[in-house]
Amino acid sequence: MTPQVSTPHVSAFRWVPSFAQGHVRDLRVRWALEEAGIPYEATLIGRDDQTSEDYRAWQPFGQVPAYRDGGVEMFESGAIVLYLSRKSSALAPVDEAGRARVTTWVLAALNSIEPHVSGLASTDIFHKGEAWTIERRPQIVEMVVMRLQALSDWLAGKDYLDGRFTAGDLIMATVLRDVPDDILARFPTLEAYRARCLNRPAFARALEAQMAPFRQNAPAAA
Amino acid sequence: MTPQVSTPHVSAFRWVPSFAQGHVRDLRVRWALEEAGIPYEATLIGRDDQTSEDYRAWQPFGQVPAYRDGGVEMFESGAIVLYLSRKSSALAPVDEAGRARVTTWVLAALNSIEPHVSGLASTDIFHKGEAWTIERRPQIVEMVVMRLQALSDWLAGKDYLDGRFTAGDLIMATVLRDVPDDILARFPTLEAYRARCLNRPAFARALEAQMAPFRQNAPAAA
Repeated sequence: MTPQVSTPHVSAFRWVPSFAQGHVRDLRVRWALEEAGIPYEATLIGRDDQTSEDYRAWQPFGQVPAYRDGGVEMFESGAIVLYLSRKSSALAPVDEAGRARVTTWVLAALNSIEPHVSGLASTDIFHKGEAWTIERRPQIVEMVVMRLQALSDWLAGKDYLDGRFTAGDLIMATVLRDVPDDILARFPTLEAYRARCLNRPAFARALEAQMAPFRQNAPAAA
Repeated sequence: MTPQVSTPHVSAFRWVPSFAQGHVRDLRVRWALEEAGIPYEATLIGRDDQTSEDYRAWQPFGQVPAYRDGGVEMFESGAIVLYLSRKSSALAPVDEAGRARVTTWVLAALNSIEPHVSGLASTDIFHKGEAWTIERRPQIVEMVVMRLQALSDWLAGKDYLDGRFTAGDLIMATVLRDVPDDILARFPTLEAYRARCLNRPAFARALEAQMAPFRQNAPAAA
């Protein structure tokens, strides 16, 4: 049994290979906590912890981030950010209709856009060079472009998804961050929107907080 | 401008091809409303509506379901079910820690499991017979099996994900419903869990409500 604590604890990796650095999902939770001005501690884990019984009791899939504060214990970056969005008006309006919109955009980013963007990461990073990717990649690009077009249409003339910066923009910006630059460049509205979100000081602090342990724990050169 | 109404309205398709019947995402929202005992009306749409300016103002990606009640207007099945879970204790505990768990499992089902299951639908339905699927399918199956194993480990000895039936189980069961039977059969715990959830009378009512318009609006045989 891990003792309950009231300072929020977020699990994160001690070190990851360079292609993943700055892109691990604890970034979203760190960013939300920074926007809300809530101090937190990172619980750094390694490969072995991902399959340990203790960690699986906290995060059944062995992924990061997992989260706890006081009596609340949860996982999934989107879920944690939604939870935090009810603790701070920096992340969401307090009225029911406004909160429903934030929930909508968090889920839209994660379910209507991210799966296609992750599909591209599969062909371009994880399975780079495999024969199937040649036939498959243009199909995935077509889906990504279709969804980005709809998002771009929605954002035309708007600074944020729904009037002001919310947790919905926070999640959406992290999803757009993983879209290859040459594809995002087809949508100037989305390029400007992504930059607007990522230029927030809270994002820079979150990114640095994820990166610092990677520098500290880099494996010695062979 | 569509007038605001207080009876919940859920968008759904007038008709879809047989492979999609019973699997369109408004099913989740109908099921949640049935569990909560909240009467609702379906707003049936067709292919043309999906690209209309009016519908895109309600659902920017042209998908179903979209939802409105009173002053609340939203979309994404997972988001709508999360919203409804705060309206009825049939869908979630009322304490903060319990709600955080429900949010966690809704997001886990949609983000850690469903994208891989949808990948299988790509190779087996939407791109059936294309050369790339031969090399790619075993990789996707491996991911699906890995995630189902973790879920099965979590559910060992449990009836539900977190003590009692919640919106988390509702969403998880709809995701497992789309796992091919021969793959789910490797996990007796998950087969029993899926059956436990889908045997609920509210699910049967939701399914019938989605199917009825399809029978009524079936295109005449050529």
